[in-house]
Amino acid sequence: MKPDKLVKRYRITRPANFKLSDFDPADTGGLGIGKDEAKKIIAEHSRRLARLQEKLYAEDKWAVLMILQGMDAAGKDGIVEHVLYGVNPLGCDVHSFKAPNSEELDHDFLWRGARRLPERGRIGIFNRSHYEECLVVRVHPEILARQKLPPRLVTRNIWKERFDDICAFERHLVRSGTVVLKFHLRISREEQRRRFLERLENPAKRWKFAMGDVAERKLWNRYMAAYQDMIRNTSTPDAPWIVVPADHKWFSRLVVAAALIEALEKLDLKFPLSGEHSAELKKAKAALDAEGGAQAATRRTKPRA
Amino acid sequence: MKPDKLVKRYRITRPANFKLSDFDPADTGGLGIGKDEAKKIIAEHSRRLARLQEKLYAEDKWAVLMILQGMDAAGKDGIVEHVLYGVNPLGCDVHSFKAPNSEELDHDFLWRGARRLPERGRIGIFNRSHYEECLVVRVHPEILARQKLPPRLVTRNIWKERFDDICAFERHLVRSGTVVLKFHLRISREEQRRRFLERLENPAKRWKFAMGDVAERKLWNRYMAAYQDMIRNTSTPDAPWIVVPADHKWFSRLVVAAALIEALEKLDLKFPLSGEHSAELKKAKAALDAEGGAQAATRRTKPRA
Repeated sequence: MKPDKLVKRYRITRPANFKLSDFDPADTGGLGIGKDEAKKIIAEHSRRLARLQEKLYAEDKWAVLMILQGMDAAGKDGIVEHVLYGVNPLGCDVHSFKAPNSEELDHDFLWRGARRLPERGRIGIFNRSHYEECLVVRVHPEILARQKLPPRLVTRNIWKERFDDICAFERHLVRSGTVVLKFHLRISREEQRRRFLERLENPAKRWKFAMGDVAERKLWNRYMAAYQDMIRNTSTPDAPWIVVPADHKWFSRLVVAAALIEALEKLDLKFPLSGEHSAELKKAKAALDAEGGAQAATRRTKPRA
Repeated sequence: MKPDKLVKRYRITRPANFKLSDFDPADTGGLGIGKDEAKKIIAEHSRRLARLQEKLYAEDKWAVLMILQGMDAAGKDGIVEHVLYGVNPLGCDVHSFKAPNSEELDHDFLWRGARRLPERGRIGIFNRSHYEECLVVRVHPEILARQKLPPRLVTRNIWKERFDDICAFERHLVRSGTVVLKFHLRISREEQRRRFLERLENPAKRWKFAMGDVAERKLWNRYMAAYQDMIRNTSTPDAPWIVVPADHKWFSRLVVAAALIEALEKLDLKFPLSGEHSAELKKAKAALDAEGGAQAATRRTKPRA
């Protein structure tokens, strides 16, 4: 299946009707393939991405911002590791957002993300993002209370206002040449349980487990309601959400890789100067050629690696 | 050959006697291997690095700062691309330093690098660095004149002072848990000429060529003198320079990969909690197990990917 076909069914283009429960976390897209075949496709996608990223970097016009949101253990880190494997680290910035620190809380909620935006020519990845402001903060009113906002500004409209502000911010980014790709990795509560148990049982993964994770699971339904409302209100034509079934890691990686490739191919990237034969470049070449002639007389030449 | 053996001969441990001309840019370490075999070793090193980096990230105690310095076309970008290929982008920050901007010039010369230092748990790569302050700035006195320094501070001691300040800065980093690895990629003037010509001839590489590059070559000897003085004065026991023969790209990548592996292995990295069996973790496991029992009665279970 072509990348764009695969992505299409998970892109939220009619947000008003969006229902999270319409998306099965265990969906594998009816591809009729298994984990091993998927791995091969992901490796091929990864090479394709590396080539596209090289041109993105060379052109230095567009930036790409990938936003990853999902419950704990939904596979956000794995997406970074496996989809962007092989992409030149020079052209790739990852930032994982934790609970905001005191300096960050002294600013508006978009500030800390704005400071980490990718430069032109780069793919930036936000592992969690400003969307946490409508997720964990919404599920835990005590966090909102600690945000030092002037009380008169905290009204019943606050979530609607946050959605509006986020949409306006992203519209601005898109208008400035940043492609915004937003992924919600959707896992089932049962799959999260299995992954937590695996973390506890595997000595090399135990450090990823936090005691609070088990307590947070009890708020599952409230989180799902917050996700649904967020996706309804922030899926815009410029920056739609892609809801990625994530119970099968291989499938979620396939969808994200496909979406990235599709987005980059749409940019019609080209190496600058590739068709250029200016007098200036010819002069530079002649100067280097002449130098070689002069040197050849006095130096041994070494074979190239 | 073991990584540490390979690196040893290129590490500058007696800087007072250091002579750049003692290091042949075309050296391949007497390994008796060619490009193809080297590629296999680099791929194996890359996998080893990926595993070490995972532990570095999990432990969240040490940081690694890799500094890459070398003439244009010495292969700095290629080192990032080929040595760090496969390392999780989550744990890897690359910053390429260009000519300082006006905000940066309004600060001391270490300021902009300090802002880009890797966090604990990360490998940070400086593609060029504060060392440019003793290289391009030294070769081009007009750049120093534009640096807005109070004139009375610009004395004949300025380079000595810069070396001292850099050494003190790096000593501080090392004491704070940052491993500092400094690589000078040493190419011959003739090899640079070949690579420039290749850039001009290859449409996919032409964008990397800048017209100023040809003019800069004329200052080759002054650059070499600046490199030699810099390495003599800033190779410290804590942060020695490694002078990497770079006429053969494969060999330079092998040396840098080996040095990174050696440095990471010395840290004796371990996954946190890997041997932990606390009552708290047992309790979390029991809670998750019990949940599973309760859910199994009401839900179908899905196979794991």
